[in-house]
Amino acid sequence: MTLGIGDDATLLAPRAGHELAVSVDTSVVDVHFPADAPATAVGHRALAVAVSDLAAMGAQSRWCWMALTLDSHRFADEHAADAWLSGYAQGFLGGCAAYAATLAGGDVTSGTLAISVTVMGEVPTGQALKRSGAVAGDIVAVTGALGGGAGGLALWQRGERDLTHPLLRRYLLPEPRLDAGIALRGLASSAMDISDGLLADLGHIRRASSVDVHLDAGAVPLAEGLTAALGEDAARRAALSGGDDYELLITLAPENFARAQAALNAQGLALSAVGRCVAPGTPRPAAGGVDAAAGDYHGWQHFAPTGAAGDTP
Amino acid sequence: MTLGIGDDATLLAPRAGHELAVSVDTSVVDVHFPADAPATAVGHRALAVAVSDLAAMGAQSRWCWMALTLDSHRFADEHAADAWLSGYAQGFLGGCAAYAATLAGGDVTSGTLAISVTVMGEVPTGQALKRSGAVAGDIVAVTGALGGGAGGLALWQRGERDLTHPLLRRYLLPEPRLDAGIALRGLASSAMDISDGLLADLGHIRRASSVDVHLDAGAVPLAEGLTAALGEDAARRAALSGGDDYELLITLAPENFARAQAALNAQGLALSAVGRCVAPGTPRPAAGGVDAAAGDYHGWQHFAPTGAAGDTP
Repeated sequence: MTLGIGDDATLLAPRAGHELAVSVDTSVVDVHFPADAPATAVGHRALAVAVSDLAAMGAQSRWCWMALTLDSHRFADEHAADAWLSGYAQGFLGGCAAYAATLAGGDVTSGTLAISVTVMGEVPTGQALKRSGAVAGDIVAVTGALGGGAGGLALWQRGERDLTHPLLRRYLLPEPRLDAGIALRGLASSAMDISDGLLADLGHIRRASSVDVHLDAGAVPLAEGLTAALGEDAARRAALSGGDDYELLITLAPENFARAQAALNAQGLALSAVGRCVAPGTPRPAAGGVDAAAGDYHGWQHFAPTGAAGDTP
Repeated sequence: MTLGIGDDATLLAPRAGHELAVSVDTSVVDVHFPADAPATAVGHRALAVAVSDLAAMGAQSRWCWMALTLDSHRFADEHAADAWLSGYAQGFLGGCAAYAATLAGGDVTSGTLAISVTVMGEVPTGQALKRSGAVAGDIVAVTGALGGGAGGLALWQRGERDLTHPLLRRYLLPEPRLDAGIALRGLASSAMDISDGLLADLGHIRRASSVDVHLDAGAVPLAEGLTAALGEDAARRAALSGGDDYELLITLAPENFARAQAALNAQGLALSAVGRCVAPGTPRPAAGGVDAAAGDYHGWQHFAPTGAAGDTP
């Protein structure tokens, strides 16, 4: 950064041999986070979900911009406002430090509480992970475990406020998989982050790559504590379509799987195969592939690359 | 742009030998624009005020990102929603074309109507205009004419809805001075855009450059139709502290003034000297410098570089 906050714009000097990856995410109160969420979580989460898009590209985060809209009603009491802003800043700036994303500028306005975060990262030219590289035969895999975002939201709505609960942490304090994305450069054929839910996000990969996917729903790893909190059926539903997990959904050639898994395991992160890319129109596997434990989801899911019909069970 | 909308992030390849200038601006309904402003104006204005920050740096705009938050109540009627969005898109995308800013991504969420626009431009390395380069002896100058933003708002509040009125155009359809900023590279010693009002924005230059400014309030050019609409005193007040004009406020060495003025005149844009930079603590000129026409503002204004006292008359 050659000129920082305090002028009309920030001046940056990107490194030679790199492309810039840029993404914007808005978090709105009562839409993306509860009005009574801890301020630290609001700040952390607003940045983390934006940085997650850089992780999905295999980019290293470098800079971020924060457009914060503050609700004047909420901040009528000066002491409460100070406490909220202090917590918020701690969450946001803690994330900046954790993700090596320099806060390079922003804007503060009044209105309904919302945060638009622009993140910018760098990736060596040509090495970015995209949604479009999957080919038939590739393994479909996910990092970590799924359903924690939806599970945490369900717990929050039931009144759970213990932020050390693993599901609440997953919901309020998600961690973008930056290191995983970087490690997967050259190994994954496509990648994205899971924000809308595994089934919906698989649809994005399918459309961008023109493949079908046979998903083994029973192989989808469930977030810690999820089955205990929601019961088995709701837990699996949360993992398949809950969203807000910010794990990576990738495809990769079978011969790259062991190497990718070892690289992520070295980061303390699991990589689980959950399906296969197939040519559009390939019939789903016979009964042998069905995972009865998947309940409603009847094991292998088949997703056509075009219409909405059949997209969700 | 090597990868456009539709992936997790946009991939960009900036040109060698250039720095990137980045800025974010949020426009909130009922704060930055009236709830009943034409949708086209809302779209145009949201982009234009962000691009204005690139103009102030002497940067060429290249890309923009739009984080749009839509109010579901406002858009309950599908036909009204379609009409609004169509007008909005026309305004925003028209601006993208006019300013050569490719819409490179964004986010759409629900909440109170607001638009956060991130703009990115390029400027040859080392040539960006900053707030910090003014030195004692420099001329203070402004492009175009001032007070139109505040004058247009006043007219709008009185019920004027004729968008061909020059003041309403200035308020609702401001034009960032991109070409002017580029022409002023190497000529201006400092620059910024006038968004908070001339007096407030002079304060930014003063603080960043550690100079005082002697302002000849009577020399500040008034927007077309402003005196007729508001009366002379309110017109001058609007020009000095109204804000939302998005003209450029620059300083430059006296020997550069004629060349800068000729360059801007060639673009159909006026450049008017409105004051001088002086060493901090320099007494203001004797009575000869006073412009009686300035009314409340008593001609020459003296702005100390430090405390708030004396900042505004």
